[in-house]
Amino acid sequence: MSSTAKTVSELAARVGGHTFGDGSVIIHRVASLETAGDGQIAYVEDEKLFASASASKAACVLVPEGADVNVPCRIEVKNPKLAFALIAEILHPPKKRDPEIHSTAVIASNADIALEVFIGAFVCIGENSTIGSGTQVRAGAKLGDNVSVGNDCVIHPNVFLEDGVTIGDRVILHAGVVIGADGFGYVRDEHSHYKFPQIGTVVIEDDVELGANTCVDRGALGRTRIGRGTKIDNMVHVGHNCDIGERVVIAAQTGISGSVTIEDDCVIGGQVGFGDHIRVQSGAVIGSKAGILPGKIVRPGVWWGIPIQPLAEYKRLNAHISRLPAVREELKELKERVKKLEDDLIQNRER
Amino acid sequence: MSSTAKTVSELAARVGGHTFGDGSVIIHRVASLETAGDGQIAYVEDEKLFASASASKAACVLVPEGADVNVPCRIEVKNPKLAFALIAEILHPPKKRDPEIHSTAVIASNADIALEVFIGAFVCIGENSTIGSGTQVRAGAKLGDNVSVGNDCVIHPNVFLEDGVTIGDRVILHAGVVIGADGFGYVRDEHSHYKFPQIGTVVIEDDVELGANTCVDRGALGRTRIGRGTKIDNMVHVGHNCDIGERVVIAAQTGISGSVTIEDDCVIGGQVGFGDHIRVQSGAVIGSKAGILPGKIVRPGVWWGIPIQPLAEYKRLNAHISRLPAVREELKELKERVKKLEDDLIQNRER
Amino acid sequence: MSSTAKTVSELAARVGGHTFGDGSVIIHRVASLETAGDGQIAYVEDEKLFASASASKAACVLVPEGADVNVPCRIEVKNPKLAFALIAEILHPPKKRDPEIHSTAVIASNADIALEVFIGAFVCIGENSTIGSGTQVRAGAKLGDNVSVGNDCVIHPNVFLEDGVTIGDRVILHAGVVIGADGFGYVRDEHSHYKFPQIGTVVIEDDVELGANTCVDRGALGRTRIGRGTKIDNMVHVGHNCDIGERVVIAAQTGISGSVTIEDDCVIGGQVGFGDHIRVQSGAVIGSKAGILPGKIVRPGVWWGIPIQPLAEYKRLNAHISRLPAVREELKELKERVKKLEDDLIQNRER
Repeated sequence: MSSTAKTVSELAARVGGHTFGDGSVIIHRVASLETAGDGQIAYVEDEKLFASASASKAACVLVPEGADVNVPCRIEVKNPKLAFALIAEILHPPKKRDPEIHSTAVIASNADIALEVFIGAFVCIGENSTIGSGTQVRAGAKLGDNVSVGNDCVIHPNVFLEDGVTIGDRVILHAGVVIGADGFGYVRDEHSHYKFPQIGTVVIEDDVELGANTCVDRGALGRTRIGRGTKIDNMVHVGHNCDIGERVVIAAQTGISGSVTIEDDCVIGGQVGFGDHIRVQSGAVIGSKAGILPGKIVRPGVWWGIPIQPLAEYKRLNAHISRLPAVREELKELKERVKKLEDDLIQNRER
Repeated sequence: MSSTAKTVSELAARVGGHTFGDGSVIIHRVASLETAGDGQIAYVEDEKLFASASASKAACVLVPEGADVNVPCRIEVKNPKLAFALIAEILHPPKKRDPEIHSTAVIASNADIALEVFIGAFVCIGENSTIGSGTQVRAGAKLGDNVSVGNDCVIHPNVFLEDGVTIGDRVILHAGVVIGADGFGYVRDEHSHYKFPQIGTVVIEDDVELGANTCVDRGALGRTRIGRGTKIDNMVHVGHNCDIGERVVIAAQTGISGSVTIEDDCVIGGQVGFGDHIRVQSGAVIGSKAGILPGKIVRPGVWWGIPIQPLAEYKRLNAHISRLPAVREELKELKERVKKLEDDLIQNRER
Repeated sequence: MSSTAKTVSELAARVGGHTFGDGSVIIHRVASLETAGDGQIAYVEDEKLFASASASKAACVLVPEGADVNVPCRIEVKNPKLAFALIAEILHPPKKRDPEIHSTAVIASNADIALEVFIGAFVCIGENSTIGSGTQVRAGAKLGDNVSVGNDCVIHPNVFLEDGVTIGDRVILHAGVVIGADGFGYVRDEHSHYKFPQIGTVVIEDDVELGANTCVDRGALGRTRIGRGTKIDNMVHVGHNCDIGERVVIAAQTGISGSVTIEDDCVIGGQVGFGDHIRVQSGAVIGSKAGILPGKIVRPGVWWGIPIQPLAEYKRLNAHISRLPAVREELKELKERVKKLEDDLIQNRER
């Protein structure tokens, strides 16, 4: 029995659920309905899947309260998917590397490293930087000067944090993330482009997660901010001076130009493009591949298309577009009928 | 004469072609028709370029069988571009670094490194990982625990392979590739986002090539797979639990959401966006910048647009759209004619 | 007083402006109109902001010549934003790391490193490579063999320069940039994809800046070029054999397929997609998210959309599309009127 394994009853207690069946069954692992077997727990939420849940070989299934799922052992719970996520954290806790500073790491003598910190091979930490307790800085990550990283963060391999960047607690930065590189701003005269100053900072608040190879540029003069609890997928670009609120979700490859504000609790799809100085109001949802013109204010609601429109309007216009061949036909037919009317009228007159 | 140089006859034999002209001419290098000169071989395939091929200064030209290309020395072959590629591999074999484990590399004591392996400076290889014979792991690459890399792979600098990832034989991973980072999945309650478990794996099969800074996320519960012989360009995002088949080609900056299946032999353009749970059937071709809605089944054929349509329909609708100003005009004219008819009819009646 | 601080008069002299107010005021820092205070200089250019400039607490404001901005201390200058950028460079010069070769760096014995060079921790520099005076190669950057880097460059952490790449003077490569990875080209037979040779080079000319995680692939046979003074944002993909001219500006996440030519002084938005073999003529401006079909010649002017059209036409068609519901209505109404006319005519006849 693995050190993290639990009985069904223990798990039910942790997620506030009720056990139906043998609560002493030992669970080692979460799994999907299709693959789960002995010692494994799965979940079902969608009524359409209740039949396949009933056929599952899982040792235990998390089901909605009162759900008609016929398995020998189940836990009824309000939100089975959330319970599944919480149980996964219990059974498969994120890897905890023991405190250690690898002998190859290059750390400035005045850097302030908490006691319980893991620092991997080939890590660099610059002057006056601080690393909080419980944080893991994995192999090859480079931190500049005056960087502040909070507690219980995981900085994955080859991440780069430029001078002066501030990272909160429990932040996860996946491999290849770059935070604090210069923003993209130039002033042009007749001969060439001069760099507009890029001397601001970046603040990443608590509980943020940034996907692999995502880039967050430093503010030009002020700061770029990613608010508490916001989750950003791979290869997203966040330009200088953006202010991303709390609990925002942004899918992969979205690009956000400078000085964009995205308020709390927005949901942004993948490959969306933002012009600069946009404000997205709290609760707005923007569909994948949408494009938003500079300076726009995006109100709450669901938005879609290039340029963005309310989803209902987008669908309506798309339907109109697909009806264009029919419009063409109708127009042609109508022209023929009008022509005939005209001819008839002339004939009438001539009679 | 460089160690890899060959005579025209030798090269012709290797590609199953017939030499016309002096087969003893020595070839050192492949080059384009325009720049090729002494000691260099070029190719021509497109009939429209036969005239410029005839004017080429190349020491030898690969031409289609029976092609009317008038050069002193040519090799006739069924597929000149393929022959050119094969000859390039002979004349310019990929750099083979001699087996060596750089003194700075940090390798777990229980890692299993084959004898004939190159491991560059500042490489990390974790617990229980295995590296097959002939593989090169270049400077700064980081491999986690339980990573398996096959034979004759090239892992370019600063690649990151997370714990548990499996890489086949002859795989090429360009610089900055990240394989096995957490997928993007959360469960929301009223307060915040909880991580959905991301505890699956990634399997990269034989002969795959991944472009620079491309990211392949690990499966949430199961695995993410890239099938044998599939080629993926730079900065492509492959989400958790995707199943990409064999010999698929995916151009740069395409984004593939979670649980997408792309069957064998599909061709996907650049900057395409996939919603989740899509299935692209074998042989489908999807044009650049296309967008595909979640859950779609994409049948064989050529697809284009946002959302995707068969190419012919896409073109037809685009033509209709560009005719809209004319439709407007026709409609206006028709209204005037109907108005006139109505007036005439009233007049008729009044008479 | 910081070592770089200057009086208002000194700064005015440096930017060719005229001081109005107390020229002896000492300036430490540039700042925005809203946040600037004691010891800080701001700028205003847009007439609409003159009122807020007058309300600014900045110690000094850069204003257009003759502008009606009412502040105790101002510098009048032809181009205030440019003057601001130049002053920022004086007050906040880019970090200059002292010449040093970190003890952990791995440098080939025949590499030619100028005297005044900074080389950070865990840097690799390969055989026959050269680094010019004043250049900084920061921690974790990897340079292959036969790489040439000019003077006064900044190569940020974890950059990778593949064998044979040439970098000019004063080039800035942000973290995670990959230059010289193989281009994406294959020849297919019935069984699999063979690599088309990717044995060319990359040339990055003077004063180029490339954003974080941007990738520039090597030429297949020839070279890929980024011309002098060109500025490229984060995560841009430049394919093999592209020829990007001088002073071109390319925003984030744009993807450029192989053999594209972009002539001098073009401006390209973010997330634009280029098919291969396109030529963009000098002075063209391409809006964000545009898509350009392979082989196109893009003339000077402003272009927009997928596929691109002149901006005016794009707007016109978009207006037509949003009028489609009205067109539908008009058509319906017209049909009814024609029907009525037809009925009337029949009745007329029957009478």
